[in-house]
Amino acid sequence: MNSLLEIKDSKFLKDLSIKELEELAQEIRTYIIETVSKTGGHLASSLGAVELVIALHYIFDLPYDRLVFDIGHQAYTHKILTGRAKDFSNLRKKNGISGFLSYDESKYDVFEAGHSSTSLSALAGFLKAKELGKDIGEVIALIGDASLQNGLAFEALNYLGGLKNQKSIIILNDNKMSISKNVGRLSKSFRKLRIRKSYISFKKVIPQGLRRMFRALAYGDNVFSAFGFKYYGPIDGHDFKQLFKYLEQAKKSKESIVIHVRTIKGKGYKPAESDQVGKWHSVAPFDLETGNTLQDEKLSWSKAIANLIEEEAVKNDKIHIIAPAMIYSGGFSEFERKYPSKITDVGIAELHATVMASSMVKEGLIPIIPIYSTFLQRAYDGINHDLARPNLKAILLVDHAGLISNDGSTHQGIFDLSLLNSIPNMTIMMPKDLTEAKALLKIAINDVKGPVAIRFPKGSVEERLEDEELEFGKYKIELPLTKHNVISYGENVNLLKKEILKQNKKIGLINALFIKPLDYELLRSLKNTELYVFEEAVEVGSLNSSLHLFNSKEDLGIKIHTTGIYRFLDVGTKEELLDDALMNIEEFIKKI
Amino acid sequence: MNSLLEIKDSKFLKDLSIKELEELAQEIRTYIIETVSKTGGHLASSLGAVELVIALHYIFDLPYDRLVFDIGHQAYTHKILTGRAKDFSNLRKKNGISGFLSYDESKYDVFEAGHSSTSLSALAGFLKAKELGKDIGEVIALIGDASLQNGLAFEALNYLGGLKNQKSIIILNDNKMSISKNVGRLSKSFRKLRIRKSYISFKKVIPQGLRRMFRALAYGDNVFSAFGFKYYGPIDGHDFKQLFKYLEQAKKSKESIVIHVRTIKGKGYKPAESDQVGKWHSVAPFDLETGNTLQDEKLSWSKAIANLIEEEAVKNDKIHIIAPAMIYSGGFSEFERKYPSKITDVGIAELHATVMASSMVKEGLIPIIPIYSTFLQRAYDGINHDLARPNLKAILLVDHAGLISNDGSTHQGIFDLSLLNSIPNMTIMMPKDLTEAKALLKIAINDVKGPVAIRFPKGSVEERLEDEELEFGKYKIELPLTKHNVISYGENVNLLKKEILKQNKKIGLINALFIKPLDYELLRSLKNTELYVFEEAVEVGSLNSSLHLFNSKEDLGIKIHTTGIYRFLDVGTKEELLDDALMNIEEFIKKI
Repeated sequence: MNSLLEIKDSKFLKDLSIKELEELAQEIRTYIIETVSKTGGHLASSLGAVELVIALHYIFDLPYDRLVFDIGHQAYTHKILTGRAKDFSNLRKKNGISGFLSYDESKYDVFEAGHSSTSLSALAGFLKAKELGKDIGEVIALIGDASLQNGLAFEALNYLGGLKNQKSIIILNDNKMSISKNVGRLSKSFRKLRIRKSYISFKKVIPQGLRRMFRALAYGDNVFSAFGFKYYGPIDGHDFKQLFKYLEQAKKSKESIVIHVRTIKGKGYKPAESDQVGKWHSVAPFDLETGNTLQDEKLSWSKAIANLIEEEAVKNDKIHIIAPAMIYSGGFSEFERKYPSKITDVGIAELHATVMASSMVKEGLIPIIPIYSTFLQRAYDGINHDLARPNLKAILLVDHAGLISNDGSTHQGIFDLSLLNSIPNMTIMMPKDLTEAKALLKIAINDVKGPVAIRFPKGSVEERLEDEELEFGKYKIELPLTKHNVISYGENVNLLKKEILKQNKKIGLINALFIKPLDYELLRSLKNTELYVFEEAVEVGSLNSSLHLFNSKEDLGIKIHTTGIYRFLDVGTKEELLDDALMNIEEFIKKI
Repeated sequence: MNSLLEIKDSKFLKDLSIKELEELAQEIRTYIIETVSKTGGHLASSLGAVELVIALHYIFDLPYDRLVFDIGHQAYTHKILTGRAKDFSNLRKKNGISGFLSYDESKYDVFEAGHSSTSLSALAGFLKAKELGKDIGEVIALIGDASLQNGLAFEALNYLGGLKNQKSIIILNDNKMSISKNVGRLSKSFRKLRIRKSYISFKKVIPQGLRRMFRALAYGDNVFSAFGFKYYGPIDGHDFKQLFKYLEQAKKSKESIVIHVRTIKGKGYKPAESDQVGKWHSVAPFDLETGNTLQDEKLSWSKAIANLIEEEAVKNDKIHIIAPAMIYSGGFSEFERKYPSKITDVGIAELHATVMASSMVKEGLIPIIPIYSTFLQRAYDGINHDLARPNLKAILLVDHAGLISNDGSTHQGIFDLSLLNSIPNMTIMMPKDLTEAKALLKIAINDVKGPVAIRFPKGSVEERLEDEELEFGKYKIELPLTKHNVISYGENVNLLKKEILKQNKKIGLINALFIKPLDYELLRSLKNTELYVFEEAVEVGSLNSSLHLFNSKEDLGIKIHTTGIYRFLDVGTKEELLDDALMNIEEFIKKI
């Protein structure tokens, strides 16, 4: 192990033999498995790309050659090769190293991202800088097959393919499933792209001039060649000899080129290798021997909501789930097995999901779209222009809403609320527990006209589930109202209640089940009181903004105090993040 | 003319001979030219698609077959054929007919949109509804070549191509330039896609089984076939015989199919036909004989800002413009001719533009992105995740900010401010005139660290341009402060000032040049006064939200009154829209 800790940069690789590189790969793999078994993290992608990342460091002159990782799920080997092995015990912890690339950590991290499919656009920016005279070597993107399904990647592919005399290198890391299974035409074509034996054996006897044409015949239709890239592959991503040969070719090529590399996700750790649904993509600490998780197997909010959806979907033919790469993450794996005709996976295509939903509503259906808060940012225009504007009801299940442990600034679910709150015709709800979730879902399905967002957090939820009647647009008084009242939504209502009782303060507590629309009647009754808004969301545009507006329009004289998030927040547990945001709940109640 | 006015629906077409259809096309063309010369509108696209739209109505059974127009720039013929010729005098006017498709106007408008590239996703929704048992015929999308460059279209293409046994029909209306010129690989491939003579002549002698392979050879790489579509074309979009033949084929096909149709944008009106830059895409009323505009040729805000950018760009090598299909619309045509190396058109790819900008900033450049407010919605995630999060300076020129005359609900520039205002590290500015614009641009280039948005409206601007020094984050007192003060930004500051003086009221006026960050010092001096916020933007999340927050956090006791937009607004002039939003400026000042 020690040798990995001593690595400063990857220059030493050039002196190693293939055999030594293979040993190094084995060492890195063991290190990643052991570390992640303790810290949790993105295991399977990184295991799949060990040889590939070593080979990229071996062949290219990094960071002079700009290597862009798409998202960075595959980047642990890169981190180890650039002097960060020693920091792995603090992986995804406060003040530790990020699970993704990070400008703050290393000059080898030339581009950082947590959202998918940005790598090719980043590459376009590096190319432009190079064209404008910046001293930059090769530009290389390492992108997974799932990331290629997002529109952003296509916009960049179209742009890059149209450039004259500007070469880019795309390494397609094809592990056949990426986050979970792939959908759409692309993944089908990837399966088809095999070097046909007939072509290979005939190659030598075909005259040079005709080879290109026959090659096209042999390979069939190929989206990369359609976009103007030279295409090679698929090659074995665990074989250094093949990797070196084709990466050298990429380096020497004068034209833009795609090297299609086949890797085995989870390679080297049996439970991860045999995973068919994606549960080893991102894992909590686990037992090395058995692969069993060391986290209590509590019911997750995602799965609990999926269960509620199932209850409604079986009795309502109008309901159809459109899942943008959210079958596994959204807790719908079982649902999909049981009701394949009631759910459609459209891949990492959030905007497409919302626009597709729009015409489905026109045909009398109720589309339900599970989506992480942070990825909803990609779907904003569809929600506004294609759903809210014509006032069409689709239901957004906004998962991972609020502060997100471990993933860092790219994954905080703190913007969706403000984004949606300014859109006319939207309804926004957030339950504090499953009982409320069930009642709110019923309201969404039966009583609301336009688009609805139901928000819920990452993490586990108490399984208790009762029948409750809630009314559209009506809040709950959780603690009797006084002159000083707290208003919040979601699980924080529970925490605030506990804390108020603990501190034995005479403070009222309002559960704002609906962030939009407000409970106007209740608010009118609060005339001339003091209202303390607690929001696990960016301050500007969230509930407090609507409250301020209503207060001023109706001249209610309510004194509103706001606590919310005002800056980007890095890695931490949820409690650490609340502290970072100056939102410690104990302190908050103390100050009232 | 009269005969067009009598059309109720397009069923009569089936009884017409080709010659009669050609006469009808001529009649429609003349009607469109004459009407649009009086009303203004999207002329060139509609002229190009007259025969194509007639043919679609002729061959298909609309609206049982669902025909989706992408955006609807091409849809005037469709409107005439579905009983709306009589309404054309009110085209794009309040209570008149929309420039795009409209659910309220006709059951033939099965999908409405004003943003590009939604048609294929809409088609996916119709297909899904059909699969789930809804009684739907063929699903057909009519999409222009430029719209295909947006990521959304690719997400849908990938989805549709991956479906088994579900047929969709895509009509590619290729007019070689769409909004202005096309960029990227796709447009290059479209040029190449010609039926090779060698293939055509050999076809008959090639055994059936081999035809497919030879066809692939003849056609070469093709993005549609790569996505799994049968591809036919290009065919002449002004020749009814060809159109009928291939549309029939599309109808009969069992597989998903693309018909590539070549049309001449502006066909039938010489000035529009010979347009190379896109000025006949959307026009003001014009003189039929000369083609000269009947609008005063005033300096537009877009062009004026482009001029200011030019001034800065020539003396600053770091500056590079990334224009997402905004060369002509953004006023950069001349700039591009003079400094081709300082500007890059990336096509309708707003998100790609922002992510590409991100890595350019990392290399020391200052990317400037002109973008319409309403299209910025597609770029939100790039602005948040790739620019603001790592605090990288790109400058967004947010054009068409505020209420938009004539284009209707899909084009109002009322959301960008709220979207950007909740993002940490953002700076948002809005000048009231060119003098301020120049000074703010300098601040953006020289003084600001993170991403900056400079907003400006649609329409013309006074040419007066002086040198002025402004300070980052400092507001201007336009009328001396009193107990009652108005705060606003942009051109409305001028209108409010005029109105206050006209009504001779003792009201102060603050010009909030920076919506973000606020002028904290000035606001502190307003303790216990009344502040009237006037915003041509959605209320929630805009300037008033930040003011409310600061007021409550510092306990300033300012009584804030808010006037802003709270619902979607349809077609009208800017004055009509302000009235619709209950934002008449005269009334606003009267009530203070």
